[in-house]
Amino acid sequence: MRETTINILEDVELSSPVFIEALPGIGHVGKLAADHIIDELQAVRFAELYSPSFPPQVLVDENGIVEPMKNEFYYLRDAGEDKRDYIILVGNTQGLSPEGQYEICGMILDFVEGYGVERIYTLGGLATGQPVEKARVYGAATDMELAESLKDHDVILRSADGGIIGASGLLLGMGRMRGMRGVCLMGETPGYFIDAEAARALLEVLLEMTKLQVDLEKLEERAEETRKMISRAQQMEQEMIDRLNLKPGEEDLRYIG
Amino acid sequence: MRETTINILEDVELSSPVFIEALPGIGHVGKLAADHIIDELQAVRFAELYSPSFPPQVLVDENGIVEPMKNEFYYLRDAGEDKRDYIILVGNTQGLSPEGQYEICGMILDFVEGYGVERIYTLGGLATGQPVEKARVYGAATDMELAESLKDHDVILRSADGGIIGASGLLLGMGRMRGMRGVCLMGETPGYFIDAEAARALLEVLLEMTKLQVDLEKLEERAEETRKMISRAQQMEQEMIDRLNLKPGEEDLRYIG
Amino acid sequence: MRETTINILEDVELSSPVFIEALPGIGHVGKLAADHIIDELQAVRFAELYSPSFPPQVLVDENGIVEPMKNEFYYLRDAGEDKRDYIILVGNTQGLSPEGQYEICGMILDFVEGYGVERIYTLGGLATGQPVEKARVYGAATDMELAESLKDHDVILRSADGGIIGASGLLLGMGRMRGMRGVCLMGETPGYFIDAEAARALLEVLLEMTKLQVDLEKLEERAEETRKMISRAQQMEQEMIDRLNLKPGEEDLRYIG
Amino acid sequence: MRETTINILEDVELSSPVFIEALPGIGHVGKLAADHIIDELQAVRFAELYSPSFPPQVLVDENGIVEPMKNEFYYLRDAGEDKRDYIILVGNTQGLSPEGQYEICGMILDFVEGYGVERIYTLGGLATGQPVEKARVYGAATDMELAESLKDHDVILRSADGGIIGASGLLLGMGRMRGMRGVCLMGETPGYFIDAEAARALLEVLLEMTKLQVDLEKLEERAEETRKMISRAQQMEQEMIDRLNLKPGEEDLRYIG
Repeated sequence: MRETTINILEDVELSSPVFIEALPGIGHVGKLAADHIIDELQAVRFAELYSPSFPPQVLVDENGIVEPMKNEFYYLRDAGEDKRDYIILVGNTQGLSPEGQYEICGMILDFVEGYGVERIYTLGGLATGQPVEKARVYGAATDMELAESLKDHDVILRSADGGIIGASGLLLGMGRMRGMRGVCLMGETPGYFIDAEAARALLEVLLEMTKLQVDLEKLEERAEETRKMISRAQQMEQEMIDRLNLKPGEEDLRYIG
Repeated sequence: MRETTINILEDVELSSPVFIEALPGIGHVGKLAADHIIDELQAVRFAELYSPSFPPQVLVDENGIVEPMKNEFYYLRDAGEDKRDYIILVGNTQGLSPEGQYEICGMILDFVEGYGVERIYTLGGLATGQPVEKARVYGAATDMELAESLKDHDVILRSADGGIIGASGLLLGMGRMRGMRGVCLMGETPGYFIDAEAARALLEVLLEMTKLQVDLEKLEERAEETRKMISRAQQMEQEMIDRLNLKPGEEDLRYIG
Repeated sequence: MRETTINILEDVELSSPVFIEALPGIGHVGKLAADHIIDELQAVRFAELYSPSFPPQVLVDENGIVEPMKNEFYYLRDAGEDKRDYIILVGNTQGLSPEGQYEICGMILDFVEGYGVERIYTLGGLATGQPVEKARVYGAATDMELAESLKDHDVILRSADGGIIGASGLLLGMGRMRGMRGVCLMGETPGYFIDAEAARALLEVLLEMTKLQVDLEKLEERAEETRKMISRAQQMEQEMIDRLNLKPGEEDLRYIG
Repeated sequence: MRETTINILEDVELSSPVFIEALPGIGHVGKLAADHIIDELQAVRFAELYSPSFPPQVLVDENGIVEPMKNEFYYLRDAGEDKRDYIILVGNTQGLSPEGQYEICGMILDFVEGYGVERIYTLGGLATGQPVEKARVYGAATDMELAESLKDHDVILRSADGGIIGASGLLLGMGRMRGMRGVCLMGETPGYFIDAEAARALLEVLLEMTKLQVDLEKLEERAEETRKMISRAQQMEQEMIDRLNLKPGEEDLRYIG
């Protein structure tokens, strides 16, 4: 495999779908939120993307079955109050090299543009490196109008020089150059564990903005587990950092590349 | 040399050969096991693979002769109780970059697919980072049926999120996408020396599963040496880590890329 | 996006323009100086360059709007006492990989050569790693005549083995191979904050050499802020180094690649 | 510049020239030795090689003139007792990436093969990481006959698993695959300064083997300076390591890639 490739599993026609991206990143916040939408609304997987810029490895699932590194496209039809179509991108990794990230994001945009996407939501986490009392949601946008609309949903605009690393940033930036409009939503998270609490905060904003209707009850269960994990996580963190000589947040960078 | 290339040294026809991969990795466990099979059963070298993604260096053998970085394909005919053919892949390195690993593994699968391979065994080590009392064997598979069969051979299924880094993982993951079935076997090892004891545990499972018949006596000799090495290795380890500022297992990552 | 591309925003004809490069680097010295010229003389943006070797991210501006990583070309007509044309290259990043840097600099030189550029100024910082009493300006040139002329402007010639990393060095070196002549000017800076003081010293030399007329008053304001920042920066530095395990100057290398 | 290129400066015909490679590496041992031969025997520069895999920078010479990163080919005609022709490769860098190193070494071998080269000497240093009483010379060869001949010149054969990193190893390994024969000579050196003493030891063996006649007097002067440098170097070493957090030998790896 020398090039990034997209395998289409089902031919679908969608009507001006909204594109939601949530590849793994800081605290797995975006991924957790998008996986929840996919599960609850039974989104349909219709394409998968493989890339030689992904980590050269496989994951192993709970049954001992190997799972290639990949990104997956799901669709939703007539979803939410607005009866809109959606394409949701999730996966177990992001590209490792800059060149890989640009190639992959370019192909993703080509692909979703083919379905008529004009509006993008990218989901991620914003690492604080320390415990978070109540997760806030930060955001950025491709234009002033969307940036203003973020404030209406109590989203804090990401301050200057912040930067958004990885696919969540790149898809917005490259999308904007093609005339696509969109926002990035980032749930505030300590960053060193899988943070369902940040995902819930993120989802609440996303559901408000998209008028999608998703039951958050199961996510709350996960969030509850997350809350219990916090104290253990805090103990484990220093230990992990000492053992692996990791800097806070660096473990996530492996996924963000 | 700009591209990975395979030089065929002997034209052979094989009948639905089983493919065994054992490139260098953690504790050299898989490589030690496969080299032992090759020596004992006098497997025949028939192709070699070179890649610009290999480390830019040569090794020097015990006679002072330089040896390029390469992977080598051997075959066995009518071997074991089942009289099956085998292709065994060994070598002194793996690709360094993700892109290199994907390219190399793709070419390896193209190559062995040409000989009719449908079944894969990949061999490796699982680093514990600390002394191992009695090496156990961990495994993963491309499907539930093979995963179940691993349990029959006392192989512990690799738990979720574990991941298998390098060619041992990638060949299974990419092979599965082509309809090949297989398992990865990993001998438990401290990870910081060449571990014949872990290789023996691995070989016992592999021989049981393949019904290959291989005398383990010489490996036992090497294992004995390994056992003697352990105490010295434990002393050396901290020293090495201090001196080279290595994290446990990191030295092996250089081979795994 | 698989290749570096230049988008031309305005077709212009220029007469033997002088080329000034000031991409972000140590202490943002060159960038600060060039951004100041662009603002004060109202240079016109006429082309932008995007590359898959740029960091895979976006920046966010003070309004929460995402900004892609890019390099931008501005022009000036009949500027300064000599009424010369100028092309000024600024941006928010440099290429990350060696291959990327060579490709980008080659394309930049192809591009400006098309406008008739024969003379180059590249601007940067020279990191001391410690507080600087009064910023001096260091320099290097493509030939002896220009090196001599630097001394007339109190520029200290960069001593042997020094090296100039990144676009400031590469554009001169690759330009020289095409018969272009030029100098690199480097403002002395501690290197760990945005250093307007070093930019002022650099600008004074550049204005003298080019006979460009630029009001430095606003830069003085920024320099004043910079001076106030110094004590805080010095406190923050050790903290930052401890926290992120950064070596002095290394944070800048991320921009220089 | 997207590809490695060789610019031919003078068309020459050579008769089965011997190829000597000495790109910068550990302790600059090989480079020092080859530069000395070039100076003393007035070898003629006839080609230069540029690569996008070289470090993205320029060096600055003692006059403040920028010098691109490059490799340079020199020739000697009817040199030494045997009246043989030689091609000598020196330079200020090596490729940084594995892929770059393989591409560059492949092009170098294509190039010198075109002149009829069948015999190769690659020169380098072997880092001990500590002071060296009297520099010994280590070696490796492409075949047993040449390995035996090394012993006749008091060269110690590099023991198994040693490895030769960079162009000195790769050119031998890749050359051997084309039927070229050769040896690598490595002068023993602490590795953390430019070591003329190790270069002298290396040169003595090389001159004996090639029957080239080169006055070592000026090298002795440099060696004398080197000896005086040792005590200062030893003091500086720990300081440097502490400051830059360098592991012994790692500074050289930047050149070896």
